[in-house]
Amino acid sequence: MVNRSDIHYFGAGPAPLPTAVLENAAQVLLNYRDKGLGLCEISHRSPEANEILTNTKQALITLLDIPDDYDVLFLQSGGTGEFSATVYNLVSIWVEKQRAKIAAEVGDDEAEVLKRLRSVVDDELRLDYLVTGSWSLKASQEATRLVGAKHVNVALDARKSNDGKFGRIPAEDEWTLTPRARGGPAFVYFCDNETVDGVEFPAFPKSLEGDDAPLVCADMSSNFISRKVDVRKYAVIFGGAQKNIGSTGIAIVIMRKSLLPPTSKSASPDLLRALNLPVGPIVLDYPTISKNNSLYNTLPIFDVWVAGQVMDRLVNNYGAKKIGGQEEVSNEKARLIYETLDKYSDLYRVVPDKTARSRMNICFRVHGGDAEREKAFLAGAEKKGLLGLKGHRSVGGIRASNYNAVSLEGAKLLVSYLEEYAKAA
Amino acid sequence: MVNRSDIHYFGAGPAPLPTAVLENAAQVLLNYRDKGLGLCEISHRSPEANEILTNTKQALITLLDIPDDYDVLFLQSGGTGEFSATVYNLVSIWVEKQRAKIAAEVGDDEAEVLKRLRSVVDDELRLDYLVTGSWSLKASQEATRLVGAKHVNVALDARKSNDGKFGRIPAEDEWTLTPRARGGPAFVYFCDNETVDGVEFPAFPKSLEGDDAPLVCADMSSNFISRKVDVRKYAVIFGGAQKNIGSTGIAIVIMRKSLLPPTSKSASPDLLRALNLPVGPIVLDYPTISKNNSLYNTLPIFDVWVAGQVMDRLVNNYGAKKIGGQEEVSNEKARLIYETLDKYSDLYRVVPDKTARSRMNICFRVHGGDAEREKAFLAGAEKKGLLGLKGHRSVGGIRASNYNAVSLEGAKLLVSYLEEYAKAA
Ligand SMILES: Cc1ncc(COP(=O)(O)O)c(C=O)c1O
Ligand SMILES: Cc1ncc(COP(=O)(O)O)c(C=O)c1O
Repeated sequence: MVNRSDIHYFGAGPAPLPTAVLENAAQVLLNYRDKGLGLCEISHRSPEANEILTNTKQALITLLDIPDDYDVLFLQSGGTGEFSATVYNLVSIWVEKQRAKIAAEVGDDEAEVLKRLRSVVDDELRLDYLVTGSWSLKASQEATRLVGAKHVNVALDARKSNDGKFGRIPAEDEWTLTPRARGGPAFVYFCDNETVDGVEFPAFPKSLEGDDAPLVCADMSSNFISRKVDVRKYAVIFGGAQKNIGSTGIAIVIMRKSLLPPTSKSASPDLLRALNLPVGPIVLDYPTISKNNSLYNTLPIFDVWVAGQVMDRLVNNYGAKKIGGQEEVSNEKARLIYETLDKYSDLYRVVPDKTARSRMNICFRVHGGDAEREKAFLAGAEKKGLLGLKGHRSVGGIRASNYNAVSLEGAKLLVSYLEEYAKAA
Repeated sequence: MVNRSDIHYFGAGPAPLPTAVLENAAQVLLNYRDKGLGLCEISHRSPEANEILTNTKQALITLLDIPDDYDVLFLQSGGTGEFSATVYNLVSIWVEKQRAKIAAEVGDDEAEVLKRLRSVVDDELRLDYLVTGSWSLKASQEATRLVGAKHVNVALDARKSNDGKFGRIPAEDEWTLTPRARGGPAFVYFCDNETVDGVEFPAFPKSLEGDDAPLVCADMSSNFISRKVDVRKYAVIFGGAQKNIGSTGIAIVIMRKSLLPPTSKSASPDLLRALNLPVGPIVLDYPTISKNNSLYNTLPIFDVWVAGQVMDRLVNNYGAKKIGGQEEVSNEKARLIYETLDKYSDLYRVVPDKTARSRMNICFRVHGGDAEREKAFLAGAEKKGLLGLKGHRSVGGIRASNYNAVSLEGAKLLVSYLEEYAKAA
């Protein structure tokens, strides 16, 4: 029998959760608030569920200082679902904006509006993707599936200047964003932290700032609530819960309210189809989810509760520092590990470039990537209770995921093992 | 403090779960198989997760006698998500079939194929919906959103012959199915059990049988694994888990394999858009989910495990009777309750017609629907620990949901209360 306290888990997701949260979860599964019913059984429309939703939302707002003009949505969805949702929603909003503009010029002549709109869509609808790793690649491929290749502009394919592999984020002047002069892209998409490739944006891109900045949409599935975020710079931030936030089952979306009704409208499904654009499922329709306070369809309240518990702990632990407190810890853990890897650079090779190293997923090779010896390295780690260190099947090597529930102590034990292994090698 | 054993819960979903399952769940949340990690933390690609998936699938196959030529898919989705998924997938399969037929006649001339295909879609693409309650209504509305009104044939609106209200399933000769002679509908959709309105199909519709039967797609969200099902009669059966199956977080789809590759192909996204048809998100694409053994995206393994535990209990409890054993119990519980309601028909009025009464959601009014007195009825029930009896907000009244986890004892206590209340009234 292995106890929770015997191991440290560095898997890339689903990620470890705080033991105290799981201990509470074990109780509320059977009986929530002494009502005689557990958390998987109560109605998502009950006052209890409503309170859980409100609390979780509030904890996130507190942690990230989310301004009033942003909405927080919970969806029964994950990262991949949101690859699609962002496209459906932001394209629909873009189309409606163009339609309204044309209708203001042309008036009631619907056929004429449609004709002009069709040509605007043909000429101007561009979704800009910054492809810096496997997940933004997948997101850009989904965008292409949904709207067609001609509307997707891969403004950066980071493999091109790096021997066909991910691991660097080229300088912004090498990106080929859709020019703002021409109306700009409908949105610019990036993945803030690439889980498979260990590449993280060190900071918000400068070229996406400014008064006429495009709408920015970011996937934070694997680095959500691990550092400060200037939410105002984003149109949409999303993330699946199962890494830093909680358990598999929900995605969280932070969205600029002005993109939602009444300020912004979405195009009608009939219009989208007429323009050869896709219509998304109602469960991914942000205006519908927002209008229904995330309860349009049955929301997994248990997962919302877990996320709330995780966030409440951060709020309590870090007080006025809020997420900045967690950021310090995250940075420190990552610094210790990278420092040790660099110290023994003959033995260990960090895969991504120094300028883009992820604080969350630390990818490295041992013995130049020799498969047999990497296996032995992993086996030695397992003996010490350091689990989940195997790299993603698509890239191999070692990956130490350093999510919030990995303790400083866990990181230090990994460091000790790295030292010990290096000295013996 | 109210204990689980103090109450009986008749909520419509999320539904109660067996206490023994939740007790196990409380343990495995903290430590699964003594690995030191809990079930929300292990990788969905781990051998443990794979085993859970295989077991749950096998239990369902055993219970429902699912034949080899059917596939079982698990999705991070719910009933509403599947309203959309069925449309995207079955329309795409239909289109590809028509395209292949035309291409076989026309040959390589792509423009000609597209032209003819467009006219076939215009003339012949019909989705038939049998609208017998709120959920099939919602499903038909989602179909209309996705493909446009002209392609959706409401072959039955059960309100029309029932004073504008749901509660009856009119005779099949009153349905206006798309004629088989004209190629028939792309599929016929119905909701096997209407949770809000308490209407259940007593048996599989005769007019959907036969050698040239159309593809049939059924929502069994609220009566899944509560009775025998002749799976072969269906193209697709789906249900969200949170009623008879388990906890909110997954939907289960049972699909005829011949509708999946390699036998059937789906239309390309480019073609669908060219035909003004919708392209669904990759997470709802059945061929993709099937090909990846339900692990294309992160699947909530905890919810799959809960479903497996629930089903294993039925397998063990009912042995060779399989789901037939549960059916007997479900029928008996429903019989007892309806019998009592009918016995005091001056006081209680069952809402749906006798021919279509749901065994799962027993909807009735008290005192002719007097709101104040129904409140008092509910308050009296709560005092006895009979909870969750309030009807859906859209229809009011009383609804006793009689899912699998409601025990015979619970049903009998409800019967006693109905008796007692009637005698005192
Ligand atoms: C950065 C990122 N985005 C998206 C996803 C996909 O998430 P899901 O599996 O929940 O669809 C992942 C999964 O690991 C991820 O790491
Ligand atoms: C029969 C039926 N279908 C579909 C749904 C919708 O399911 P979900 O809320 O999981 O989307 C429900 C929900 O109660 C239902 O009862």
